[in-house]
Amino acid sequence: MAKQINVGMVGYQFMGKAHSNAWYDTAKFFDLKAVPVMKAICGRTESGVRAMAQKWGWQSVETDYRKLVARDDIDLIDITTPNSSHKDIAVAAAKAGKHVACEKPLAMNVKEALEMVRAVKQAGVKHMVWHNYRRVPAVALAKQIIEEGRIGRIFHVRAVYLQDWIIDPKFPLAWRLRKEVAGSGAHGDLNAHIIDLSRYLVGEIDEVVGLKETFIKERPLQLSGAAISAGKASRKKGKVTVDDAALFLARFESGAVGSFEATRFAHGHKNDEQIEINGSKGSLVFNFERMNELQLFNASDPKHVQGFTLIKATDGCHPTWARTGPPVTSSATSTPS
Amino acid sequence: MAKQINVGMVGYQFMGKAHSNAWYDTAKFFDLKAVPVMKAICGRTESGVRAMAQKWGWQSVETDYRKLVARDDIDLIDITTPNSSHKDIAVAAAKAGKHVACEKPLAMNVKEALEMVRAVKQAGVKHMVWHNYRRVPAVALAKQIIEEGRIGRIFHVRAVYLQDWIIDPKFPLAWRLRKEVAGSGAHGDLNAHIIDLSRYLVGEIDEVVGLKETFIKERPLQLSGAAISAGKASRKKGKVTVDDAALFLARFESGAVGSFEATRFAHGHKNDEQIEINGSKGSLVFNFERMNELQLFNASDPKHVQGFTLIKATDGCHPTWARTGPPVTSSATSTPS
Amino acid sequence: MAKQINVGMVGYQFMGKAHSNAWYDTAKFFDLKAVPVMKAICGRTESGVRAMAQKWGWQSVETDYRKLVARDDIDLIDITTPNSSHKDIAVAAAKAGKHVACEKPLAMNVKEALEMVRAVKQAGVKHMVWHNYRRVPAVALAKQIIEEGRIGRIFHVRAVYLQDWIIDPKFPLAWRLRKEVAGSGAHGDLNAHIIDLSRYLVGEIDEVVGLKETFIKERPLQLSGAAISAGKASRKKGKVTVDDAALFLARFESGAVGSFEATRFAHGHKNDEQIEINGSKGSLVFNFERMNELQLFNASDPKHVQGFTLIKATDGCHPTWARTGPPVTSSATSTPS
Amino acid sequence: MAKQINVGMVGYQFMGKAHSNAWYDTAKFFDLKAVPVMKAICGRTESGVRAMAQKWGWQSVETDYRKLVARDDIDLIDITTPNSSHKDIAVAAAKAGKHVACEKPLAMNVKEALEMVRAVKQAGVKHMVWHNYRRVPAVALAKQIIEEGRIGRIFHVRAVYLQDWIIDPKFPLAWRLRKEVAGSGAHGDLNAHIIDLSRYLVGEIDEVVGLKETFIKERPLQLSGAAISAGKASRKKGKVTVDDAALFLARFESGAVGSFEATRFAHGHKNDEQIEINGSKGSLVFNFERMNELQLFNASDPKHVQGFTLIKATDGCHPTWARTGPPVTSSATSTPS
Repeated sequence: MAKQINVGMVGYQFMGKAHSNAWYDTAKFFDLKAVPVMKAICGRTESGVRAMAQKWGWQSVETDYRKLVARDDIDLIDITTPNSSHKDIAVAAAKAGKHVACEKPLAMNVKEALEMVRAVKQAGVKHMVWHNYRRVPAVALAKQIIEEGRIGRIFHVRAVYLQDWIIDPKFPLAWRLRKEVAGSGAHGDLNAHIIDLSRYLVGEIDEVVGLKETFIKERPLQLSGAAISAGKASRKKGKVTVDDAALFLARFESGAVGSFEATRFAHGHKNDEQIEINGSKGSLVFNFERMNELQLFNASDPKHVQGFTLIKATDGCHPTWARTGPPVTSSATSTPS
Repeated sequence: MAKQINVGMVGYQFMGKAHSNAWYDTAKFFDLKAVPVMKAICGRTESGVRAMAQKWGWQSVETDYRKLVARDDIDLIDITTPNSSHKDIAVAAAKAGKHVACEKPLAMNVKEALEMVRAVKQAGVKHMVWHNYRRVPAVALAKQIIEEGRIGRIFHVRAVYLQDWIIDPKFPLAWRLRKEVAGSGAHGDLNAHIIDLSRYLVGEIDEVVGLKETFIKERPLQLSGAAISAGKASRKKGKVTVDDAALFLARFESGAVGSFEATRFAHGHKNDEQIEINGSKGSLVFNFERMNELQLFNASDPKHVQGFTLIKATDGCHPTWARTGPPVTSSATSTPS
Repeated sequence: MAKQINVGMVGYQFMGKAHSNAWYDTAKFFDLKAVPVMKAICGRTESGVRAMAQKWGWQSVETDYRKLVARDDIDLIDITTPNSSHKDIAVAAAKAGKHVACEKPLAMNVKEALEMVRAVKQAGVKHMVWHNYRRVPAVALAKQIIEEGRIGRIFHVRAVYLQDWIIDPKFPLAWRLRKEVAGSGAHGDLNAHIIDLSRYLVGEIDEVVGLKETFIKERPLQLSGAAISAGKASRKKGKVTVDDAALFLARFESGAVGSFEATRFAHGHKNDEQIEINGSKGSLVFNFERMNELQLFNASDPKHVQGFTLIKATDGCHPTWARTGPPVTSSATSTPS
Repeated sequence: MAKQINVGMVGYQFMGKAHSNAWYDTAKFFDLKAVPVMKAICGRTESGVRAMAQKWGWQSVETDYRKLVARDDIDLIDITTPNSSHKDIAVAAAKAGKHVACEKPLAMNVKEALEMVRAVKQAGVKHMVWHNYRRVPAVALAKQIIEEGRIGRIFHVRAVYLQDWIIDPKFPLAWRLRKEVAGSGAHGDLNAHIIDLSRYLVGEIDEVVGLKETFIKERPLQLSGAAISAGKASRKKGKVTVDDAALFLARFESGAVGSFEATRFAHGHKNDEQIEINGSKGSLVFNFERMNELQLFNASDPKHVQGFTLIKATDGCHPTWARTGPPVTSSATSTPS
């Protein structure tokens, strides 16, 4: 029988739901060396966290992360809380000897990040940031194609992460727009992902130059859930203290150059993470809004049939893909079950 | 607390896995009037069905569907077995007073189908065929758009279902290629879906004319799993007794005309179900290989900005959509959990 | 110096303009064995034909095609008039020993077509129908790719020609909607092209079955230009005597099967001619609304990088392409001119 | 009768051919206030320029631009020569009282550009740079849509111009790669176009920051035409003195931010000029490789049918479009000509 890993997750909102689904599903679709067990979920509001536990099958609940990290029956702490709390939880988990998996952006600033890295290294525990896009089948395939040498020496990286959810000036001053909770805006939230993808696929960045912009400087204060239910609208405004958009140019250690842009002000783009890589032998294009597709240009194809090939990264031969639908393979049973 | 429905599923292979996932997930993502309970799974090979039960959380196993349908603790029988067994299981389930949900194509022929319908009607149970594409968010949105009158009187339906998994002549004579088990080939397997979609979206068909073709008449007999493991290849051939492709034209009761095509011989198309509908006020295009997209042409837009609009049917406002990822909504908590 | 061909063109409206442009441009962009000379243009209304001649550089005008075909200085008669006049002009031209190039659809019916073929054969002149799409670079490339054996034995042809210009019931009873002038509707106008493409690319059709439909049975009579200028609308209606849509299925001599559809009732499709061909080794897709693109699926590519390749058929290596823009080639002069 | 403008064009290579075609065609497709007359073409090699004149219908030839600008029968000088000669020709033309239309990039540097502007202003002649993309129908439509207020306040400009013609290290040191003739590389050649488009559509740029890169530092010296014909390959190399790629970020006077990138090292992109603009009420996307398409996102559409609309800017209602093909309009003649 496979080894088991007891997971204790902190946070139960937006990302907590996504992680619950992942912890549940992963062993169903993949053959794992270690099977996760949904041991405990932790949040500050007991009723909320208890409802979440029941719905998704978490075996127990905690309302204080310090109790969670102290439990003997927990192997790994999964951190899905807002950014300002990552550091304290991660350091506490590491000190308690737990492995640490933390949502991005990792920390509020470099100082915090370095403290977290020091803590996990001293504790000798495993640690990771949830840069989930690395395991999207089409991205994993891009990695494989680059390692096979199919696009050669890389000249260009061109990445954007475009969203459009705060263009309306009436959108309130949610925690993601307040520096003291979020640390940064589009930069930490979105550039974090495309920086990670480019480091994963191309390598380390050497120098950068860029700019940030906050298009809407003030927004209505966010009301409590009760006030929202009562149909009230906030008339008071507060200052937006993070960036709405962040753009930068980069030189990679390898000599490649890159362009990066993150914004929450691009109408029509819901969750549009794109990366293109141009090399001496070909090019690759990935776009998360068509997440199972990867485009490959192969300059060694016969000249008259060259072009971008639209690969659907959904076959048995593709990395990290778990088939859940057609086509039917030849090994399908020949006798009715 | 929500009402519960105890499910007994027959079949545990390809479709059995897909259904297990659906039975598990549905109450996590949607607020349901009745929550399914994965009570029992049934298959003829005990070891296989037991492994499946353990992996996906079925509470018990059976190896004879007759025992399953007789159990008092089962409310609904879900049939995911090869086509030739649908009728017997469905009729038995109905006679035992169970609701019946059956994979498509419903039956081997019209005679069987009528017998099944008679049985469920006499028993007064609920019954359905798993035409799953109706609940794809983009398809449900198409339905809504048509009902809102946005495309007007319908003139044309244009539907294809293209796959490419048996083009290789060495592909063996699997059960789906044998009439005595499958009933038909591309027609029952694929046209079934696009006929259903067009009935759902446009209405009943009045008359048809068409053709069927079997491009490769003989194929290697399929070996047992043991022989495959031993690396043996079958040298004996058997006759393919179903259609590789089936095309037909149709007139709908409403006066619309339609074109339908199903094939397993279209290289580059893995699971490419497409439907386009043209009406007096606009058009709709759906393509399952980009399953979250729906294209709408609205002839009442200002002339110079008319065109097909690529709707990503993944927002809170779209039918049957359950958000599992960004964008972050304004109701996100303002306090760290 | 290249040989010259003296052209006499009959018709000066819609197609007359397109042909004038082609006759002028062709020798500018291609090295031709014979250079066309725009000798004479012929139409019944002298003022109109004279204005056309001046604008486009036709050297002389005629108002009676019988005079045109009788002229000694004319080598080739180009017929761009409405369908009902094709036969008489072509037969007269052939009898006068002129080569004949005729717009499609060739004739009002098979009887006329046979008479025309007899006439040109007896006269021993060269003759052709203007199936212009054969020389679209992406189509010429498709032909080359098929001849190179890249898609293997052909199983499927899937062709549509979709337009949307007569959906409005107020659209008048133009000549293209009257059988006595047009011969047929969408069938002769649009299916003619995709039938030609499939014969060009795949081969002869053996048998067909199909249907035709006229969605709007009556339309306002068309007013004269003067009445239109005066802002009058016709209140009288006349019967539409041609098909709005025509669909058919086909078996090719080679064993391939095909689906064809032509309609003028598909909103959002201006001039949307599409053809897809599926073979044992690959597939090809062409769509005139992106006329310089050809998609090729090559089943012998490594499995994990297979997909449809979007070829832009606009390079020096592509057939019938004449470069008029970037990219700059290496043979660009190194000294300023 | 329309006024006439006598054109004298300098240069007869790549761009000379494109301009000849334009000068010839324009009055055929558009109703102009002034009709161009192809009066004289000028180049240093008499045989070459004479052949060009004959092929394209230029009425006379010159081999010295000083003679051309001095001619009384010339109204406008069109400059299509390599960049290093633009200034001298333009200044001479202006001094001779001729209108000046000059290829881009306008000059070798700002100093030259200012001298040219001074000259045309002092002479009081009309002057323009050939930023041809402004008149692409889809771009002209973008301009119209912005002026109609459909996308609101502009936040973002995102523009790239990608080509791939010098990735091969064996590509020779052509004039476009030598600073003394070209002035700059991708920056002047390609960024010039997207800077112009963004100024045209969005407004003036206030500040920039960026980087340039030359990926291949040395290339084989370019041989003479004779040596190339003799099959010789150059073994000597020379230094590439211009940029292969140039990227920059910008702030516009209006408060918008922009990202710009030009490269000749992006495999798969032949002439791929793209611009996207995001505003408070919508977004626009243009891509020259699908030059007749414009995408518009309209945030005021009903939420559930929002998306990017793919406008084909090829209808009578679209700016700068001249119909040359279907669809057939209702004003088509009802009587055979």
